[in-house]
Amino acid sequence: MARVVVDVMPKPEILDPQGQAVSRALTRIGIAGVVEVRQGKHFELEVDDSIDDETLHRIAGDLLANPVIEDWTVTRL
Amino acid sequence: MARVVVDVMPKPEILDPQGQAVSRALTRIGIAGVVEVRQGKHFELEVDDSIDDETLHRIAGDLLANPVIEDWTVTRL
Repeated sequence: MARVVVDVMPKPEILDPQGQAVSRALTRIGIAGVVEVRQGKHFELEVDDSIDDETLHRIAGDLLANPVIEDWTVTRL
Repeated sequence: MARVVVDVMPKPEILDPQGQAVSRALTRIGIAGVVEVRQGKHFELEVDDSIDDETLHRIAGDLLANPVIEDWTVTRL
């Protein structure tokens, strides 16, 4: 059994309205010094030993991320 | 200037319908061996050096997470 983390982020050239909303909220509550916020998704998977890295990347690219607009990283913990 | 990652996850005792939907989709496309999927949020912040750890935890707890139902981690990269 292994734990795997997949982080999915909008590609740098893609607008991120959720992150921008957080940025504006920070200004509103008086916190300066945060230059940029980008928001993505964080998945934690518990997988058995039959799941190899190729399958993990297939899961990430087919189900967890939209490869047109998102990048992702797969990390075994 | 520093990069900071904040990961926000539903607390273990909170149902996670998004993660459960991913689990079901995995079964449907024929991938066995994934025992559990939980979905949260992943934030990447670019902050200047005036932002200390206390401010980061305030940002996470006040704006990025809902402390009633979510846990979070703050990591400086």
